[in-house]
Amino acid sequence: MYTVPTREFERRLNLLYRVMDEKKLDAAYIVNPINITYFIGFYYLQTERPAAIIVRRNGDIYFFGPLLESDHVLNQTKFVSRVYTYRDYPGEVHPMRLFADWLKELRLDSSAIGYDTSPGYVGYWGYKGPSLAELLPGVKFVSISVDIYSMRLIKSDVEIELLRESAKWSNLAHSLLQDYTAPGIYDYEVSLRASLDASIMMKKALGSGYKPVRSEYPAYAGFRGQVGEHGAYPHSISVERPIKVGDVLVTGASADVGGYMAELERNLFVGKPSNDVIKYHELMLKLQDAALSILKPGVKASDVDKAVIRTAEELGVTEYLLHHSGHGIGLEGHEAPFLDAGDDTVLRPGMVVTVEPGIYIRGLGGFRHSDTVVIHEDHVEVITYYPRDTESLMVEI
Amino acid sequence: MYTVPTREFERRLNLLYRVMDEKKLDAAYIVNPINITYFIGFYYLQTERPAAIIVRRNGDIYFFGPLLESDHVLNQTKFVSRVYTYRDYPGEVHPMRLFADWLKELRLDSSAIGYDTSPGYVGYWGYKGPSLAELLPGVKFVSISVDIYSMRLIKSDVEIELLRESAKWSNLAHSLLQDYTAPGIYDYEVSLRASLDASIMMKKALGSGYKPVRSEYPAYAGFRGQVGEHGAYPHSISVERPIKVGDVLVTGASADVGGYMAELERNLFVGKPSNDVIKYHELMLKLQDAALSILKPGVKASDVDKAVIRTAEELGVTEYLLHHSGHGIGLEGHEAPFLDAGDDTVLRPGMVVTVEPGIYIRGLGGFRHSDTVVIHEDHVEVITYYPRDTESLMVEI
Repeated sequence: MYTVPTREFERRLNLLYRVMDEKKLDAAYIVNPINITYFIGFYYLQTERPAAIIVRRNGDIYFFGPLLESDHVLNQTKFVSRVYTYRDYPGEVHPMRLFADWLKELRLDSSAIGYDTSPGYVGYWGYKGPSLAELLPGVKFVSISVDIYSMRLIKSDVEIELLRESAKWSNLAHSLLQDYTAPGIYDYEVSLRASLDASIMMKKALGSGYKPVRSEYPAYAGFRGQVGEHGAYPHSISVERPIKVGDVLVTGASADVGGYMAELERNLFVGKPSNDVIKYHELMLKLQDAALSILKPGVKASDVDKAVIRTAEELGVTEYLLHHSGHGIGLEGHEAPFLDAGDDTVLRPGMVVTVEPGIYIRGLGGFRHSDTVVIHEDHVEVITYYPRDTESLMVEI
Repeated sequence: MYTVPTREFERRLNLLYRVMDEKKLDAAYIVNPINITYFIGFYYLQTERPAAIIVRRNGDIYFFGPLLESDHVLNQTKFVSRVYTYRDYPGEVHPMRLFADWLKELRLDSSAIGYDTSPGYVGYWGYKGPSLAELLPGVKFVSISVDIYSMRLIKSDVEIELLRESAKWSNLAHSLLQDYTAPGIYDYEVSLRASLDASIMMKKALGSGYKPVRSEYPAYAGFRGQVGEHGAYPHSISVERPIKVGDVLVTGASADVGGYMAELERNLFVGKPSNDVIKYHELMLKLQDAALSILKPGVKASDVDKAVIRTAEELGVTEYLLHHSGHGIGLEGHEAPFLDAGDDTVLRPGMVVTVEPGIYIRGLGGFRHSDTVVIHEDHVEVITYYPRDTESLMVEI
């Protein structure tokens, strides 16, 4: 299975209608592109052009947005019954004023409307504009941000299955990444070749009905500049030099299955790793084990991170720990809950998180694995299954 | 030249200091990652973790942000004299409260501070938090959004040179894209192969000191799902089917030179184009010519779009025109000014815009070329020079 079925969108919309009933709302104004994808399966490239969906309590769903998405939205989703468009941004009349006019036309100008992010549009690529709250003083705007957040926090069986399928192709992309890694070439050469071949094979396997939802191509693997000493920057982007013998690399792989993308990250060792490298790698694995061993329903997200911090103290690597232990994952790269000392969310069945404490040694590199983990009633399931021992992650030279 | 020299950052900071003097500000709080890149050359991956720079009027620049960027920022820029970090988001103490504490520590808690986007952090990947304006009621927060916007609107000679260099490698990537296009394969196969080979060659040409700033790899070319009938969606993302004979394709190519990326887009025709395809392609070229012929200093951005709209009316293609005629470009994909009927910005020397009116025919495809154009005192310079005639854009089969 590699698409979100209609009944799943219906389930989500029903959850939304329940919130609307509880809060006595006539409509919901959903402006976050990922929330739009979540409710009706329409993903689009966010630009300075505002776009939103209006979900009426009677089940009608309208799209408000730029003309260039008009046919696209109708092609991508069956849930939109009417499209309201403006030519472009900023336009002779500001799009948000048109949004207000359309809400008047729909007789929603003295109603109660829930909103997910803001009753307007977020500043993006130079967007500026008024809020609907200013333009429609008769509307009672009510935040339903937390309600939608709570829905997305717990993944359904469908979502978990999509993430499992994503993990499979992430594994292929990562295997090719390891195969193609060699000294003397640049990290992006390896990355683009692995992404290319994994994408071709994934598409051949899944067949003619498959296409990625959020990505231009099906599967990705790469290093994002975490090569050797540059790997000590957890968010390195690119490096000047090629991969060389002795480098510790930090990888990342994923694949787009219905817009869901699992996260698989590993170290790779170019040639025989030094004793120091082996030592830090094993210390990192102990931190990840500490997190995995405590992860279960009823435990707080913060407890997982605190267990990692405690273990780091015992192992004497606290100074190398540059970030928390993981984050939720699904339709977005990072989602709630955060495995962070400050996030007291209680873990529940259906939550999906990455587990990825990392240690970073100046001048040497980064040591981090990320696995995607599903929390079930009575166990946790690590859906990324790429080998994690030093031996298996060596690149022969 | 493929990096932004120190003197260019100094020039920009001096413009900022001038604004601070005019507005009697003690410091500026810059939170937009592209503005941070603009002023000090530090680009980072934006996440839910807030980050900002504080620019003091005395010339001191501090970084406020997550621990994981601490070494990275010091490695990427020489302008930051001190780094203030929090462990991670959300943290036991919210990062924005720490930002407020640090401003107190810096004795800026009863000062006047300019801000570029908001005196807080934008909602991104689930970020939530208070505004500094709430936390520091003694501070007078003043928007300098328009001032920074105005600086970025006019490109310096350095920026224009970087965009020219970008156009060169965009041309290579696009040439390979055309070479590799063939019926029976998927758009992303062609895209990843062209991006791979162009990236390798660009790096070999520019040498050991070069690296991309905002991208994982140096050069890109692709179709983003604008294949055949799917090309009629201006923002198609992906398609299920391979390229086939008779397809009209819409391309895009760019290359990262010091974080600056020119925009080059063309049609490609797989096999001999039909008479209809030739007709629409030529109509689109007339629209682009209409825009290019009017573009010069003193003309309003809206006038350029209105000239396109008028020409479309004359040619009878108004209904196919799904977006405005272009946008500013530089460090961001889309920037001000917009070549839009509603944007009355007067064009001035140093502005750089894309010129890209497009027409979209349901069931057939999209017809769009985008060229990057620099406005000079006495002429306009089209820095993307890929051929644009039907003949040159044919892919032999």
